[in-house]
Amino acid sequence: MAGALDGIMVLDFTRAYSGPFCTLMLKDLGARVIKVELPGSGDTVRKDYPLTAGGEGGTFIILNRGKKSITLNLKSEKGLAICKKLVAKADVVVENYSPGTMEKLGLGHEELSRFHPGLIYASISGYGHSGPYRDYVSYDPMAQAMGGITSLTGFPDSPPIKCGVSIADFSTGIYTALAITAALHHRQNTGEGQWIDMSLQDCVWLLSSIEFSPSYFLTGKILPRLGNSHPSMAPGNLYMAKDGPVLISTGVHSQVLRFYQAIGREDLCRTPFASDQSERYKYKPQIDAVVNEWTGSRTVAEIIKILREADIPCAPVPSFDQICTDPQLISRDMIVEVEQGVSGPVKVPGSPFKMSRTPGNIKFPAPILGGSNSEILTGMLGLTEEEVEQLSGEGII
Amino acid sequence: MAGALDGIMVLDFTRAYSGPFCTLMLKDLGARVIKVELPGSGDTVRKDYPLTAGGEGGTFIILNRGKKSITLNLKSEKGLAICKKLVAKADVVVENYSPGTMEKLGLGHEELSRFHPGLIYASISGYGHSGPYRDYVSYDPMAQAMGGITSLTGFPDSPPIKCGVSIADFSTGIYTALAITAALHHRQNTGEGQWIDMSLQDCVWLLSSIEFSPSYFLTGKILPRLGNSHPSMAPGNLYMAKDGPVLISTGVHSQVLRFYQAIGREDLCRTPFASDQSERYKYKPQIDAVVNEWTGSRTVAEIIKILREADIPCAPVPSFDQICTDPQLISRDMIVEVEQGVSGPVKVPGSPFKMSRTPGNIKFPAPILGGSNSEILTGMLGLTEEEVEQLSGEGII
Repeated sequence: MAGALDGIMVLDFTRAYSGPFCTLMLKDLGARVIKVELPGSGDTVRKDYPLTAGGEGGTFIILNRGKKSITLNLKSEKGLAICKKLVAKADVVVENYSPGTMEKLGLGHEELSRFHPGLIYASISGYGHSGPYRDYVSYDPMAQAMGGITSLTGFPDSPPIKCGVSIADFSTGIYTALAITAALHHRQNTGEGQWIDMSLQDCVWLLSSIEFSPSYFLTGKILPRLGNSHPSMAPGNLYMAKDGPVLISTGVHSQVLRFYQAIGREDLCRTPFASDQSERYKYKPQIDAVVNEWTGSRTVAEIIKILREADIPCAPVPSFDQICTDPQLISRDMIVEVEQGVSGPVKVPGSPFKMSRTPGNIKFPAPILGGSNSEILTGMLGLTEEEVEQLSGEGII
Repeated sequence: MAGALDGIMVLDFTRAYSGPFCTLMLKDLGARVIKVELPGSGDTVRKDYPLTAGGEGGTFIILNRGKKSITLNLKSEKGLAICKKLVAKADVVVENYSPGTMEKLGLGHEELSRFHPGLIYASISGYGHSGPYRDYVSYDPMAQAMGGITSLTGFPDSPPIKCGVSIADFSTGIYTALAITAALHHRQNTGEGQWIDMSLQDCVWLLSSIEFSPSYFLTGKILPRLGNSHPSMAPGNLYMAKDGPVLISTGVHSQVLRFYQAIGREDLCRTPFASDQSERYKYKPQIDAVVNEWTGSRTVAEIIKILREADIPCAPVPSFDQICTDPQLISRDMIVEVEQGVSGPVKVPGSPFKMSRTPGNIKFPAPILGGSNSEILTGMLGLTEEEVEQLSGEGII
């Protein structure tokens, strides 16, 4: 089946999480991604634990499925020259080095766009390429903190805590893939390439500002950490059943009324506990107490049965092994087995892009280091096998 | 300045968080977004607390800046006919109703693509339009739990906790905007429209699977919740300074060595505490104890000064008011004031799309309910002012 980005070539100078997730999204959507790696070691995540029996990092496989790998010593004159020939054939360059690094290598946006004005060049960094924090090195935990997620996650009386997954890296990866794809649209209309300067902090801040900045900007107050509750939903929290936690949310007024009916507390429909959102939210602790009283004498399964019949949003809190075997995810091809060369078949997440004509396609192995050196250098740049061997002997690839 | 998606028209049947954030991304990037709302009430978030002095919800303003609002009673024959005329002029339809709702209204993908085969039609729902959970209603907290984030967030001995921001909604919004933009690229090449079926659970699962599913799929084990530490970084955690918490991470081996030197523990460079990642990680509790001993006798400012000189990723954990006034975010136009009509100037987050030719543009107010009824019905569909007044009188708009 066709991919939406068929025919687009991405030259990928990224490693670790944010950049590789960006180019993974482009690959899922059909682009050809060539990963440029350091000879000998490559992406630092290649050896991150746990490894397959074939010695490949599980996380590396997920983040790099379907990409081609070429090794290039970018600090050598020959390596740089080869790299620029590849740039000339690319539609997109993505890099996530510290600001200034690509410029020092002679691969900055200004330099490359001089001979390739249609190039779309995306840079991902902790704080972006401008501003007072530009040169501070940063990883996902710093970006979660400096963008607001950490101060907003946790219980009011517990320490702040980051989101358990590297959401700063991954969300920035998706935002960047979106900016690149929009830039491709602009290029198709105008022929113009451009530079895209994405910051992890910017990306996280936009996420945390939506629900929480109005309180500060409009009232000068900051909300306490909300635990498992929601800034606008009451009833809405993680409640305790006889045999474990259960999530219940009501978002619109009709749900609130249906919920009280479903739990046999129709009487509450005529109290402030059922008034409009801003009024009702004032009674959140009392409302939560009523709900916990009801859930506490029932099992999670009983609660979910009653509430699903009343069309009230609810869910258990599955453990991670339950999620890794979830029937819904399996039925949507979100847990699939891929043939991974030296490692044999490996289970990986599928693509979320369920598109009727160009579905996200992930049934490809991740590359071994430099696995496409010969294919790319001879096929794309016209070198001979002897020249490729010589480059290898010189440590350039 | 031009927008990357200039000329693209999006007809937006979404409300609450996930869908509006998707179409916000498209608007930031230059698309024209027409928000179709219920006469009288509109998007449920319009009145979510806190409100401006003009009575507009702060979160609503952020999520809907720059969109046009038209009210339409889609259950009336006339309203439906007007809606289909708008669809005929649109490039993209986005909706986040429960599966089946748009079909019941006569606005399902099959129906609309019959007279508009080039239409790109994106559906967002809790579990997607297929599979055993298809008909379960779901909000962000359910999707965080059913996709894995909740089971992975928190401390090993504390209850599971969701990410403090509605990351299931917002990440799905970005993924969907990316799928739509890629579909626009495909349409430009082929003329084909398509249907996109996005699930909050799918989107969250992909995020949580990257770091955590390899452990389960390769070893059968699930990792404990990691608190503020990271599945592959040691040293790496939230540590306690004399006057508050401080985040420190090391991702590559050279950083580990530089870190031990910076804290005066060069002796550790020749111990297993400085061996390669999978070996070193076994000593994480002992390594954390060494780091906490060092941080505990210094202030956050002293620690950050020392570590920034050594180029080690580190950060304080700012409170949310500090983030809302952060100099870096301000310098990158990520905190800006926008003239918001009845509410006057309102501070909102900027656009993360720092693109040299088509920067994300957000300097627009959010619409009042039905604020563009007349403009759209007369300007785009050629109705007379009298006809618009009649529709209003009949409660159709």
